[in-house]
Amino acid sequence: MALCPAYARLERIFHRLTLLEQAQGLLHWDMAAMMPPGGAESRGEQLATLKALSHELLTAAEVKPLLDAAVEEDLDDWQRANLSEMRRDWVHAAAVPSRLVEDLSRAGSACETVWRKARAAADFSRVAPSLAEVLRLTREMAEIKSQALGVSRYDALLDQYEPGGRSAVIDVVFDDLAAFLPGFLQQVLSRQAPPPQGPRGPFPVERQKALGLRMMEVLGFDFEHGRLDVSQHPFCGGTPDDVRITTRYDENAFIKSMMGVIHETGHALYERGLPAAWRTQPVGRARGMSLHESQSLLMEMQACRSREFLSFAAPVMAEAFGAVGQSGWDAGTLFALNVRVAPAFIRVDADEVTYPAHVILRYRLEKALIAGEIDVADIPAAWNDGMDALLGVRPPDDAQGCLQDIHWYDGAFGYFPTYTLGAMIAAQLFEAAGRALPDLPASIGRGDFRPLLGWLREAVHGQASRYGTDELLTRATGRPLDPSVFKTHLRRRYLDG
Amino acid sequence: MALCPAYARLERIFHRLTLLEQAQGLLHWDMAAMMPPGGAESRGEQLATLKALSHELLTAAEVKPLLDAAVEEDLDDWQRANLSEMRRDWVHAAAVPSRLVEDLSRAGSACETVWRKARAAADFSRVAPSLAEVLRLTREMAEIKSQALGVSRYDALLDQYEPGGRSAVIDVVFDDLAAFLPGFLQQVLSRQAPPPQGPRGPFPVERQKALGLRMMEVLGFDFEHGRLDVSQHPFCGGTPDDVRITTRYDENAFIKSMMGVIHETGHALYERGLPAAWRTQPVGRARGMSLHESQSLLMEMQACRSREFLSFAAPVMAEAFGAVGQSGWDAGTLFALNVRVAPAFIRVDADEVTYPAHVILRYRLEKALIAGEIDVADIPAAWNDGMDALLGVRPPDDAQGCLQDIHWYDGAFGYFPTYTLGAMIAAQLFEAAGRALPDLPASIGRGDFRPLLGWLREAVHGQASRYGTDELLTRATGRPLDPSVFKTHLRRRYLDG
Repeated sequence: MALCPAYARLERIFHRLTLLEQAQGLLHWDMAAMMPPGGAESRGEQLATLKALSHELLTAAEVKPLLDAAVEEDLDDWQRANLSEMRRDWVHAAAVPSRLVEDLSRAGSACETVWRKARAAADFSRVAPSLAEVLRLTREMAEIKSQALGVSRYDALLDQYEPGGRSAVIDVVFDDLAAFLPGFLQQVLSRQAPPPQGPRGPFPVERQKALGLRMMEVLGFDFEHGRLDVSQHPFCGGTPDDVRITTRYDENAFIKSMMGVIHETGHALYERGLPAAWRTQPVGRARGMSLHESQSLLMEMQACRSREFLSFAAPVMAEAFGAVGQSGWDAGTLFALNVRVAPAFIRVDADEVTYPAHVILRYRLEKALIAGEIDVADIPAAWNDGMDALLGVRPPDDAQGCLQDIHWYDGAFGYFPTYTLGAMIAAQLFEAAGRALPDLPASIGRGDFRPLLGWLREAVHGQASRYGTDELLTRATGRPLDPSVFKTHLRRRYLDG
Repeated sequence: MALCPAYARLERIFHRLTLLEQAQGLLHWDMAAMMPPGGAESRGEQLATLKALSHELLTAAEVKPLLDAAVEEDLDDWQRANLSEMRRDWVHAAAVPSRLVEDLSRAGSACETVWRKARAAADFSRVAPSLAEVLRLTREMAEIKSQALGVSRYDALLDQYEPGGRSAVIDVVFDDLAAFLPGFLQQVLSRQAPPPQGPRGPFPVERQKALGLRMMEVLGFDFEHGRLDVSQHPFCGGTPDDVRITTRYDENAFIKSMMGVIHETGHALYERGLPAAWRTQPVGRARGMSLHESQSLLMEMQACRSREFLSFAAPVMAEAFGAVGQSGWDAGTLFALNVRVAPAFIRVDADEVTYPAHVILRYRLEKALIAGEIDVADIPAAWNDGMDALLGVRPPDDAQGCLQDIHWYDGAFGYFPTYTLGAMIAAQLFEAAGRALPDLPASIGRGDFRPLLGWLREAVHGQASRYGTDELLTRATGRPLDPSVFKTHLRRRYLDG
């Protein structure tokens, strides 16, 4: 390291940046899970201050020459990957003038406020002007980052969430899926039995919470380094050494919250499994949002909506609610409820089969918006037509259509595809884990997640950002993203199951 | 403001510094109330990073010239007071070399760890070397700050907690109190009836919490801007717009927790009442630790251990525990329990009459330690002799003697006197409020704290750091600190009551 003075200095700068980001992560978690409403304004100012300080440290005059000098230094593989992540952070930060960052942040906040009212009134026209402004600034930023990164404008936005992601690749994968899904969906629906009578509520919050904690324990969550709380929108936050997940409870339904906890636990296990030696360096971070979503969906969809897991979990659930021996709590009924397919309007409530259609629709629309092929005013009709074509349902109003998700209104273009990329990666990783661990279904059926977690730690979590998503996936599964694995999974579960 | 460019620039710098401090405040609260144990190490690093950034911003080369230039600018009273607070912050920060700050921080952390073991083993000798190192570094810092501030070494430390505090003044006040207390205590003890049979437990935690929240509501706590949680050591943290207080519960005793909540609510009302217009400037902060403690003790000791309040509160308490009509829950019994006097070893459990003796002992010892008049090795004997002289009791071991408080081991010399200065200020403010509000005892007896809070907002909270403690007290009560008011209060409550 004495031979790498530029790299060593960069490590010190990014160490500090990471700790500043961790502090912001905790302030965000608190805002969602603990903060009284009256704290919002000053919390906004605290976060803006920390963000501005981070930006100043990252774009200080010394950084660019250090990045250039460190390339010539004698670095090992991890250090070189770290340097590459540092440069990526720097390019994203330094490319965009502070004025644009602030304008976009302000426009996003303003639009989000208007969006909440527009959604309540189910009236897209109210928020259209604000969204047009957010889009205008986002396209400006996309243009600037496009030049800095040497990729298309949409890919420059995508890169913020999925480093190295390319829409040319996603187009192929999503077109294939879009061609497959409508026919597959019809097959599933035509064979699907009527829903069985499941467990009867109410399901007290305290018991739901105890069940969620039990499931976290089963999956391998480390309570010395994390907690479970409540927030309106469930998420996984905090830091790798202090992972904070949240859920919400509905006394009339417990499966959604329980599966939500399992989903967030998947995210949490990824964070917790990141390599301790690289804790405060860019290369030590999770690889990207697609891989992050793959870890939550691997636990929720692949492992825990399986017959094997539900055989283990059914009596645990019945006991949690004091319902041992009551009808509706058997593994068969719970499995049927957990894999029920029903086309509907709302993405976050969608099942595993219809969810990708929601994402593909949004991806196509946001790509067209960034490319300037459609205008904001075109969104409602294009949305409803897309729902019709992909899922055979037409939202009765904008609240159940193009107003349902916060992403665009908040300025997050380029995020949506990571949900379905994550679902496909999850299937591919789970299939590879199954090949490596012949006992995997049986161990999950015993509620023993140690073999699966051990494999994930080695193949995914411990690799952090050492490789790009494709290379990591190839090393873990033998090939880059292969959508056929996801389709095979769907066929097995929903047609052969 | 266009005419005050230096001052305007300073306001921007200190705005940012305050927001950084607020972020640290939230991280501290979380550490005590929410954080899983495994998060401690990274939290320590996050806090150290924010602290270092604050220190860099405050001691940047531009600050000193700006402070000098702003003095010549045309400022109003609040701005001038703000400038004076800015300079105080700068002097404290800039005087001490970073090396010493870090050494002291490290020595304090190390000593605190050893102290926990020494206390568990009731063996002072184990921690003596670590404490000697903390003391050595503290004396070095005291010497440096002494020169920068132009005050004695002890006063330079005191100034960190009580701006403008002077030991020459405290000596007179404490000597007077030390002469008064032993005789007064004997009088009280000789007249005190045996303790009545009070409420019988257990007192479920959920009900204690509900009672605490009810008391906070009665006192005027704003739940839109704050919360109540649990921590091992109760405190008031957060920010004026988001005040976080904590307590702890013992199922066998509820009065201590309830009075603890009332105490912290007093702190919280002060923070919440600070002027919104100066939220992120040094002049907008609470005046100092003595005045802060006066606000908690005014609520706890002056208002809420009174016969009037306990007449109101007795049925509220009985109802909270479903004990209406049961014996031991009448106002007379509850008053007798709340003003019970008993000399004992532990400061934090001490009653209103014996508490000052604990503080005077610590004040005298820490002053002698800083002056080099006694050594670390002399502490246990001096402590036990002092307890004997002031309270007539002798600790059986060091755990119940000189090892009981974290302050010195953590490097906080100069803090102790603020507890008893606060008690005296509380008595003086409450007496003045009573003169201004003839209906005060009756309104407290109705559980109506609006008149008292209104008076405090005007006289204390809204003044923030506009004046020094003495001037604020003079403006609020007509005279500077007058210990006779406290003594009169004690006589009335404990001899005439």
